[in-house]
Amino acid sequence: MTKIYNDPAEFKNEVIDGFALAYPDYVARVPGASGFIRSGGPRAGKVSLVIGGGSGHYPSYSGVTGVGFADGAVLGDVFTSPSAEQTYRVARAAHGGAGLILAFGNYAGDRLNFAAAADRLRAEGIDVRIVYVTDDIASAPAPEVDERRGIAGTFTVYKIGGAAAERGDDLDTVERIMRAANARTFSFGVAFAGCTFPGQSSPLFAVAERTMDFGLGIHGEPGVRSDTWMPAAKIANALVEPLLAERPEGAHRAAVLLNGLGATKYEELFLLWNNVRPLLAAAGVEPVMPEVGELVTSLDMAGCSLSITWLDDELEELWQAPAHTPAFRRGSVRTATFQRYVASDETALAGTAEQATPESERAAAVVREALRAMTAVVAEHEDELGRIDAVAGDGDHGSGMVRGLRAAQSAAEAARGGVQTVLVAAAGAFGDRAGGTSGVLWSLFLRTIGESLGNAEPVDPARLARAVGRGAAAIKDLGGAELGDKTMLDALFPFVDALDTYLAAGSALDRSWAAAARSAVEAAAATADLVPKVGRARPLAERSIGSPDAGATSMGLILTAVGDALARHCG
Amino acid sequence: MTKIYNDPAEFKNEVIDGFALAYPDYVARVPGASGFIRSGGPRAGKVSLVIGGGSGHYPSYSGVTGVGFADGAVLGDVFTSPSAEQTYRVARAAHGGAGLILAFGNYAGDRLNFAAAADRLRAEGIDVRIVYVTDDIASAPAPEVDERRGIAGTFTVYKIGGAAAERGDDLDTVERIMRAANARTFSFGVAFAGCTFPGQSSPLFAVAERTMDFGLGIHGEPGVRSDTWMPAAKIANALVEPLLAERPEGAHRAAVLLNGLGATKYEELFLLWNNVRPLLAAAGVEPVMPEVGELVTSLDMAGCSLSITWLDDELEELWQAPAHTPAFRRGSVRTATFQRYVASDETALAGTAEQATPESERAAAVVREALRAMTAVVAEHEDELGRIDAVAGDGDHGSGMVRGLRAAQSAAEAARGGVQTVLVAAAGAFGDRAGGTSGVLWSLFLRTIGESLGNAEPVDPARLARAVGRGAAAIKDLGGAELGDKTMLDALFPFVDALDTYLAAGSALDRSWAAAARSAVEAAAATADLVPKVGRARPLAERSIGSPDAGATSMGLILTAVGDALARHCG
Repeated sequence: MTKIYNDPAEFKNEVIDGFALAYPDYVARVPGASGFIRSGGPRAGKVSLVIGGGSGHYPSYSGVTGVGFADGAVLGDVFTSPSAEQTYRVARAAHGGAGLILAFGNYAGDRLNFAAAADRLRAEGIDVRIVYVTDDIASAPAPEVDERRGIAGTFTVYKIGGAAAERGDDLDTVERIMRAANARTFSFGVAFAGCTFPGQSSPLFAVAERTMDFGLGIHGEPGVRSDTWMPAAKIANALVEPLLAERPEGAHRAAVLLNGLGATKYEELFLLWNNVRPLLAAAGVEPVMPEVGELVTSLDMAGCSLSITWLDDELEELWQAPAHTPAFRRGSVRTATFQRYVASDETALAGTAEQATPESERAAAVVREALRAMTAVVAEHEDELGRIDAVAGDGDHGSGMVRGLRAAQSAAEAARGGVQTVLVAAAGAFGDRAGGTSGVLWSLFLRTIGESLGNAEPVDPARLARAVGRGAAAIKDLGGAELGDKTMLDALFPFVDALDTYLAAGSALDRSWAAAARSAVEAAAATADLVPKVGRARPLAERSIGSPDAGATSMGLILTAVGDALARHCG
Repeated sequence: MTKIYNDPAEFKNEVIDGFALAYPDYVARVPGASGFIRSGGPRAGKVSLVIGGGSGHYPSYSGVTGVGFADGAVLGDVFTSPSAEQTYRVARAAHGGAGLILAFGNYAGDRLNFAAAADRLRAEGIDVRIVYVTDDIASAPAPEVDERRGIAGTFTVYKIGGAAAERGDDLDTVERIMRAANARTFSFGVAFAGCTFPGQSSPLFAVAERTMDFGLGIHGEPGVRSDTWMPAAKIANALVEPLLAERPEGAHRAAVLLNGLGATKYEELFLLWNNVRPLLAAAGVEPVMPEVGELVTSLDMAGCSLSITWLDDELEELWQAPAHTPAFRRGSVRTATFQRYVASDETALAGTAEQATPESERAAAVVREALRAMTAVVAEHEDELGRIDAVAGDGDHGSGMVRGLRAAQSAAEAARGGVQTVLVAAAGAFGDRAGGTSGVLWSLFLRTIGESLGNAEPVDPARLARAVGRGAAAIKDLGGAELGDKTMLDALFPFVDALDTYLAAGSALDRSWAAAARSAVEAAAATADLVPKVGRARPLAERSIGSPDAGATSMGLILTAVGDALARHCG
């Protein structure tokens, strides 16, 4: 939905005004017209490329006005062809004396308005050529290519034409090249949700829940067929297959665009590319400077399209040429002169550890058992930990800890050796998978305990208590938190102190640990009264008063579970 | 919502794989790590800038890895800090021997993980500096700047730091410059709707209908205060005012970003810029190479943020320096050497017309009356025409015709002169406001009739019929449609034929016109049986069978209304 506007009826005009104010270094508004030319005005003796269409497709068309691309862009109302009058004015202002190309996507309204403008310009003695783009394979079968709509393939055709004009090609040549580029450009798209007009509250068309439309238009035209939702791998196939069916004989290098329509995330586009690219490779297609992003949008439509322009040597050079526009810039800086990066020897990253003694190997079995108990207890409380974390954080503490502990447990099961080897392996896996604050601190905690215990000496209660204390100190050093800052340390420090006290009083390890764990759980509950001081936005920190700290809570749960495991082992 | 994925648990990994496949000319994946370095590997003797954070913010951080920007980027899970292990691996691969800057937004998880990675790198003898960005003014008051989160201002700080490293500054200098840039960077944002995690169906947080949250985080953290929806002009004020409150003394040139969070349309950003820019100008702030677009997103969150980096000479040079990365490129092509475009003389665009006779001026009054009747009848049927058009088109026929006719009517009322002058004025206004196919064809129709009638001779029935016939022929010539192609001509041609017939049989103009209009209405209804052949996607065209053509329908309505006006005038 459109949220930012003043008067919906003035939406297009305010957008155009704002664009002019944003990029005066690139474009100049044509007086009295809804359109732009390059800020420097027309270059005498150069063919001028004027593109246009309805508003709502940014960066098409104003966003690609500049050196190496379009000379002028004319914009109609949202999804509506610009008028002949507007087109005439922009084209006249863009004309540098060497003729004009008027280019647009193949829609009835655009064809008529641009043709009417061309008539007026020709009446003034200007040589004008019309090129309309017909890349949408969904809109008509191949033998009726002239009936096909123009969608995201317009980007490539205009880019190539703009580059030809920029290097000084004459009008006949630019026209010929653009027609050749269009004839070799094919697009196919998919939509998940329709777009909404400024000032309206419901979309132009709806896509039913868990379905998707193939062959959408970029003006809110619904797709030509619906299908049930499918995973990215199948979407990739559905897009690639019909495009390859129209591949010209012998073509193997291609400019490829994976174009987002507005509301589809960049991350989704890259994920889809990960499924598209191997299909192209399997078919012997080599993408040349592909672009994955938003090039021709359709307001806030959710969906994307795949465009392929089959290159020959002439088109490839023009596709690769530099451009300098508000929304698309391609420099002449090339990285090909650098050597490609070669991976360093992975083994250098592995740590070293002393040979494990049989005692340490037996202790490692207890570590594995403890990790199983830790994983089980946190998984059981995952949702609760998430809810506690969501009060002032992002609510992922439970899921992060479960992810980390599962990875740690797997790594510990797989690792062969003593306590240090097993704990360091678990620590690495934990940090890698859990992420976030908990990931790094718990990883450090486990690693420090492991390195403190080593692989050689037996694990006695005093050495274990000292190792846990060192782990706590390492967390404090790295994290910078103090007791009372509402972190996991508010449970861990009381535990360490209590464990020392009980052991010094002569209690057995399992009983001492269990008693100390109870102290930790109480201390964790008491963090509800505290205000966090480290690393949280102030208003959110204040919001957390009355709720315990998620990290302290999981620490209490884990220490208790480890105590139970020790009791089972010792008992 | 996230629509494109295979297994939600593998979302991040597939995104990273896809990014590597999309931009191998720019970046190389670091083996065994969720991160990238430049494709050429580290440049020996150059300071390396490594940036990172959670996934879900593209183009941050991988998208700005390249010449003039970052040397490496490390990515965690969605909205989760990368692990120390991952960070260590990427930074080690990016290091060119002259030291490392590790830079990230100020979040507890990132601070810990990057610090732990720095410890390991330093243990290997690498000089490492940490720079975290604190631009979000909503997250803590000014005296506690170190508690502030990093949001879109990270972009500017990294860009400036990357440019300093690129030109060969040493580690001390790059660190100093980045700290200076951070100290002069301030951001404030607004959200309209929360974002949704891959694999989940509801957003991380919800913004109530017709409300907006100020001071949002970019990780799904809710805003620090809510407000009711306000127009763009007020949003602009709400964003600019608190940023100006922290303006350093004497600062007036600034790098300004208006950053979209994902689902907000580019058009909305430009509209907002149209409201922001004058506020900055009024405060004496000059934006230098501002960027309006998506630079630091938050999955599909709807909203935006405004960032200001107050420049001094050193920072300005670095902000303007070239960059060459997958998502952000800034060339050294400058347009300043061109003369700024100067508007051509507007008067040259006006047409010429002969002096009007008193007869023609009287006839012009009838034209004005006819235009009023046309406007009234189409306004009355606007919704119906929209519904008919929506069957196979974009449903805007009614609204476009009403917009055009209202403009035509105003222009006709304002124009002084004969029939030609009034009709040509109406034609221009119609084409300008109606847009689309109808806009250009109706504009041509009215203009042709006017030019055929002229300003001098009296308007007799035969001349009027001939003028209307010429108008119809002009539509056919420009539009390329034939009778039976399901267009307005299917009503207009029968009208022209019938009018000739009735006039030739000796009927009065008003009676002849009314009878011919009835033929037009019948013919329009009969278009329901036709299949359109011109300018429509084949599957959509087929969908239109059984529904009349909207253009023919409005033509029938208009001809009837004009007949009524003539009857009133003649009677």
